[in-house]
Amino acid sequence: MKMTKIINAAYIMIGDEILSGRTKDENLNFLAINLTNLGINLKEVCVIPDNEQKIIESIKELKNQYHYIFTTGGIGPTHDDITIDAIAKALNDKIILNQKAHQILIDYYGSDNVNEARLKMAKLPSKAKLLNNPVTSAPGFMVENIIVMAGVPKIMRAMFNSSLEFLDFGDKILSKEISLNVTESVIAKDLTKLQNNFPNVAIGSYPFIGGTAIVFRSFDENQIRQCYDIISNKNYE
Amino acid sequence: MKMTKIINAAYIMIGDEILSGRTKDENLNFLAINLTNLGINLKEVCVIPDNEQKIIESIKELKNQYHYIFTTGGIGPTHDDITIDAIAKALNDKIILNQKAHQILIDYYGSDNVNEARLKMAKLPSKAKLLNNPVTSAPGFMVENIIVMAGVPKIMRAMFNSSLEFLDFGDKILSKEISLNVTESVIAKDLTKLQNNFPNVAIGSYPFIGGTAIVFRSFDENQIRQCYDIISNKNYE
Repeated sequence: MKMTKIINAAYIMIGDEILSGRTKDENLNFLAINLTNLGINLKEVCVIPDNEQKIIESIKELKNQYHYIFTTGGIGPTHDDITIDAIAKALNDKIILNQKAHQILIDYYGSDNVNEARLKMAKLPSKAKLLNNPVTSAPGFMVENIIVMAGVPKIMRAMFNSSLEFLDFGDKILSKEISLNVTESVIAKDLTKLQNNFPNVAIGSYPFIGGTAIVFRSFDENQIRQCYDIISNKNYE
Repeated sequence: MKMTKIINAAYIMIGDEILSGRTKDENLNFLAINLTNLGINLKEVCVIPDNEQKIIESIKELKNQYHYIFTTGGIGPTHDDITIDAIAKALNDKIILNQKAHQILIDYYGSDNVNEARLKMAKLPSKAKLLNNPVTSAPGFMVENIIVMAGVPKIMRAMFNSSLEFLDFGDKILSKEISLNVTESVIAKDLTKLQNNFPNVAIGSYPFIGGTAIVFRSFDENQIRQCYDIISNKNYE
């Protein structure tokens, strides 16, 4: 029997602006969809403020629980960008001027324009591996099992794609969905029985106005198909 | 000198469908904006799966750290709706048939149609206070300092509004924003100095493609105004 290869991840979204409502998050759903498609299971997300102590605590708490930790936010040139230093502290790593990142900034801005603020973006944990930023040049990075990305969605997406070369992928959780024109309570009993009969399929029931979507998720395509057929052969209308 | 009244909250979003990417969250930004406007500071958000142990742990970890904990998801009639039982366990409360909730379901569905699945939605922690659900009737509830709401955005919003009568509001954090047509690194030095001079104003710098938005947040309107004037009187272009 083939062993299922399971790779789990958490995501720490760092930013006062998300918690105040000033900015609407656009990264979680992108990350969730892409990780799922790659065979990395997103198991937990935290949204925390730009607070050094909170970042350190979150990294320390999560880094040994999951294969990968993704972060967004707080890696720019201004005083409120404190993620890089906080992560270095959480890992007991030191901050150094990353020569490769420095050169990237010089190539993009010109050496006369790499002022103190911009230089900050090249001061990274000593063990950082760079993630490409084709939008504004200053790179993201991966250090240990932590993938550190910008919060601006367009830049985040590029950095995420750049991180893939460093990641290990697991078996994909497959899913199949069926929509029914009935409320959840009509099908609840059947779903409970089905869930008991198929413990290796996660059966989710999601009401919408006017009906219910049933989602079957499993590593086993055959079992998903069996569940799907059982439900779709019933006539609930 | 007037004391500032501070009320803090956390939000636990419960749902496999958010973590798999199947569903895009529509609740966080609504909650963040409305809490901020009411004088309740959202300090932390967790997104966790429909997993009883994880729900219990999250509630236990957060409930004594914040004035209020808001939750969404997992309060429907199906097998995967486990939030209510998990919260009761976390609080060492017992689940009882809430007579008022039961009557609401009878009035809405008719007594013959309150089947076992629907009845589950009236089985609540013994200390629950009900939150009105004008969309599909089955109520949300508040128990101790925890506000338990549905995940469907339209229903969540109604339950949130219904919860306001039970909540205590603090002083509002005020904010003012200015957009500049320059990149962050041009203004970083000035912002650092300004932040040092105004420790009671949280100054956030948010790049967008083509410029930077500066956000000043504080309980003190006068200090926000001073910061705003200092930045807007500079000519960065």
